[in-house]
Amino acid sequence: MSDEELAAVLDAVGERVDPTPDERERLADAVERLKDRARDALDEVAPDVDADLVQVGSTARGTWISGDRDIDLFVRFPADLSRSELERIGLAVGNETLPEGHEEYAEHPYVVGTFEGYDVDLVPCFDVEAATEIRTAVDRTPFHNAYLQERLTDDLAADVRLLKQFLKGIGAYGSNLKTRGFSGYLTELLVVEYGGFVPVLETAADEWLPPVKLDPEDHAAETFDDPLVVIDPTDPERNVAAVVSAENVARLQHYARDLLDDPDEDRFYPDLVEPLSPADVRVHLDRRGTTPLAVRFGAPDLVEDQLYPQLRRSLDGLERGLENAGFDVLRTATFADGDAVLFCELAVAELPAVQRHDGPPVHVRQHAEGFYDKYEEADAYGPFLDGERYVVERDREVRTAEQFAREKLDSVALGQHVASIVDAGDYDVLVDDEVADLANDFGQALATYFDPEP
Amino acid sequence: MSDEELAAVLDAVGERVDPTPDERERLADAVERLKDRARDALDEVAPDVDADLVQVGSTARGTWISGDRDIDLFVRFPADLSRSELERIGLAVGNETLPEGHEEYAEHPYVVGTFEGYDVDLVPCFDVEAATEIRTAVDRTPFHNAYLQERLTDDLAADVRLLKQFLKGIGAYGSNLKTRGFSGYLTELLVVEYGGFVPVLETAADEWLPPVKLDPEDHAAETFDDPLVVIDPTDPERNVAAVVSAENVARLQHYARDLLDDPDEDRFYPDLVEPLSPADVRVHLDRRGTTPLAVRFGAPDLVEDQLYPQLRRSLDGLERGLENAGFDVLRTATFADGDAVLFCELAVAELPAVQRHDGPPVHVRQHAEGFYDKYEEADAYGPFLDGERYVVERDREVRTAEQFAREKLDSVALGQHVASIVDAGDYDVLVDDEVADLANDFGQALATYFDPEP
Repeated sequence: MSDEELAAVLDAVGERVDPTPDERERLADAVERLKDRARDALDEVAPDVDADLVQVGSTARGTWISGDRDIDLFVRFPADLSRSELERIGLAVGNETLPEGHEEYAEHPYVVGTFEGYDVDLVPCFDVEAATEIRTAVDRTPFHNAYLQERLTDDLAADVRLLKQFLKGIGAYGSNLKTRGFSGYLTELLVVEYGGFVPVLETAADEWLPPVKLDPEDHAAETFDDPLVVIDPTDPERNVAAVVSAENVARLQHYARDLLDDPDEDRFYPDLVEPLSPADVRVHLDRRGTTPLAVRFGAPDLVEDQLYPQLRRSLDGLERGLENAGFDVLRTATFADGDAVLFCELAVAELPAVQRHDGPPVHVRQHAEGFYDKYEEADAYGPFLDGERYVVERDREVRTAEQFAREKLDSVALGQHVASIVDAGDYDVLVDDEVADLANDFGQALATYFDPEP
Repeated sequence: MSDEELAAVLDAVGERVDPTPDERERLADAVERLKDRARDALDEVAPDVDADLVQVGSTARGTWISGDRDIDLFVRFPADLSRSELERIGLAVGNETLPEGHEEYAEHPYVVGTFEGYDVDLVPCFDVEAATEIRTAVDRTPFHNAYLQERLTDDLAADVRLLKQFLKGIGAYGSNLKTRGFSGYLTELLVVEYGGFVPVLETAADEWLPPVKLDPEDHAAETFDDPLVVIDPTDPERNVAAVVSAENVARLQHYARDLLDDPDEDRFYPDLVEPLSPADVRVHLDRRGTTPLAVRFGAPDLVEDQLYPQLRRSLDGLERGLENAGFDVLRTATFADGDAVLFCELAVAELPAVQRHDGPPVHVRQHAEGFYDKYEEADAYGPFLDGERYVVERDREVRTAEQFAREKLDSVALGQHVASIVDAGDYDVLVDDEVADLANDFGQALATYFDPEP
């Protein structure tokens, strides 16, 4: 009986992801001590400022995966404080509380450090009236926290952990721009909205017809084009799922069906991917009879959330450029790890010397005569007629993808930092065996490429 | 001054195409004697039938090109005669009048022979009230003849000869299904309607925006999809230009501009085409970097008006089949002269071993699961996700055009007679040098193919 099998699998996963009572207690104690230190620091740095401390995030809501050791502590300042004061006091409190920590910058500065073995983010924010009146992006977080704390029972919190772990297993967890998956907050909203882990899977498996729209508070004040739309209960103008790709929506649907049909604990943990060797890559390319092309360069010095959009934009530009030049591109991928790679797999190695170029219909006299005159004396076949149009077969500028990558890469739409690298000629074009040798550095990515799964 | 140049050119062409007074007189005399003989034959074969004789065609209307020696004589029988009687008497009169002639069949039988050095068609038809009441296709001809004779002045007849000769020069004369050009009747209607040769060219050059619609009697009773529509003045339901291809409309527009811009007598006479040798073809193919394919077979025993539509349909079927199989077809042609050839020039010699195959969106559950289950255990790459869809890369059945022509030709839409030949395996597939050797039999057609003009 599949229901029993599923229950057994979920129990087994729960054993691994649920924090033990001891783990909870240690965390709670550590948070209390951390708050005391932060309170002391506040009193010392800004005794006249009426700020409070709010623990947020999964460890505040009991939805963390056992073993995670993240504490998010917000220092909430009065909304009438100036932004520079907030930053000054916020950082001073952070540095006093976490003397070994360092400052980081998202939209505004905060302090990251460790405390009794926990990784702590100590973040200053404004205490605004509502999430719609935020002054900085982080001001929204305490509202999210309050909304969820009100609704998350212990059972639902346990189901959030299952869904997070499941999304990790299938590679769809995380709202970073490399993954474009489900954030923690989104995961919690889905479990609250559908009433548990299994209902989320059942609905995704059976009922989701993207674009999927959820509006827990029934207060949407905008429309969104995204495949999954979950209106933020604390902000009617925000889609919590804006970053989730169509592929990750489909991925959840696929694996939801898979798990419900055939419960398997392994599905909650990512497969170990055995890296390919250059010889393995050569076997695949021979088997596929395709022509690979890779453009390799030192990855620009950017955080992943900036790097991956740039690489994707550059890969799209390269693919479109190749297709406009007449190449049939079978599949593409981008890898980054120190170096970055734009990888294209082409149907053929070489195009003909001539390419067909359709002119205007003969009856559009001015254009037609312009076209005819331009090519009449040119080194081209034609102009001749195909139906009502002039056609010529003129010399193709680029016959191989390698030549395109060497000579035309600067003409396609690239991410800004990649464009600078290409303009400086600071890249290598790899063909044939050199592509296979990429496996020395990107063997895992190539293994996924050549054994693709949903 | 271009007008004077044009006048000089037209005078020179007129010199060549206008029949001399002597030629006209000899023809008129011969027609009289032919009519006498036909009248005698009628009196002998069917003394009680009230038939008359009508000379039709260009030699009846003074629009023939000097040197043409065709006489069309219609024997017009009462409309209440039975069809079998018409055929019996018609053939008997024909055979009596042209004792060396032979019977031919269009829609119904007629007799073809020579008389005093002229080629004679002796055709029985019905004397119906109007062209809309015809019992056989040829019954319409006397109405066409009467309509034009009323309107063709000597000047217009001279202009008809110029337009016919011009259309011959550019390869657009003739309503046969090989040429798909302008018939004699259509040529005469255009000259009458626009008022001369130069007005026809000026209008075609400047004003024609296909579909071009002309309705001299303003009585159209149907709509037509053709690029050129000239409603028959004697039949509101008939497009006289139905057979004219879009290409020939464009061709007339192109060369009309050409002649008006730069009058040149040579344009009235087809270029002599120097046949290519196999070595010439090889040079072109090397220069073009393409992959040629030819299918060759004994042409089915059909008149050209049946053969060419069959060959074109077969060529289209082959081209579509190749494209559906993933081949990029640059250009095609068909030749026939004893043997028939379907010729395709392909962009590449070999396709990859795998081809992308898009499945349904994952959210269309039943289809999606069917697709996934079908390919999950198959020897294919994937299924994986691209956006919301499943995709697989599966083995391609056919990797070369040669293989397609050998194994899959019977699966494409072919002309009926060609299909029988293909089903019997009675064809050769030529690649590489064998294609160049086609020049031994089709050197002129290949010369036109590799030096295409409007």
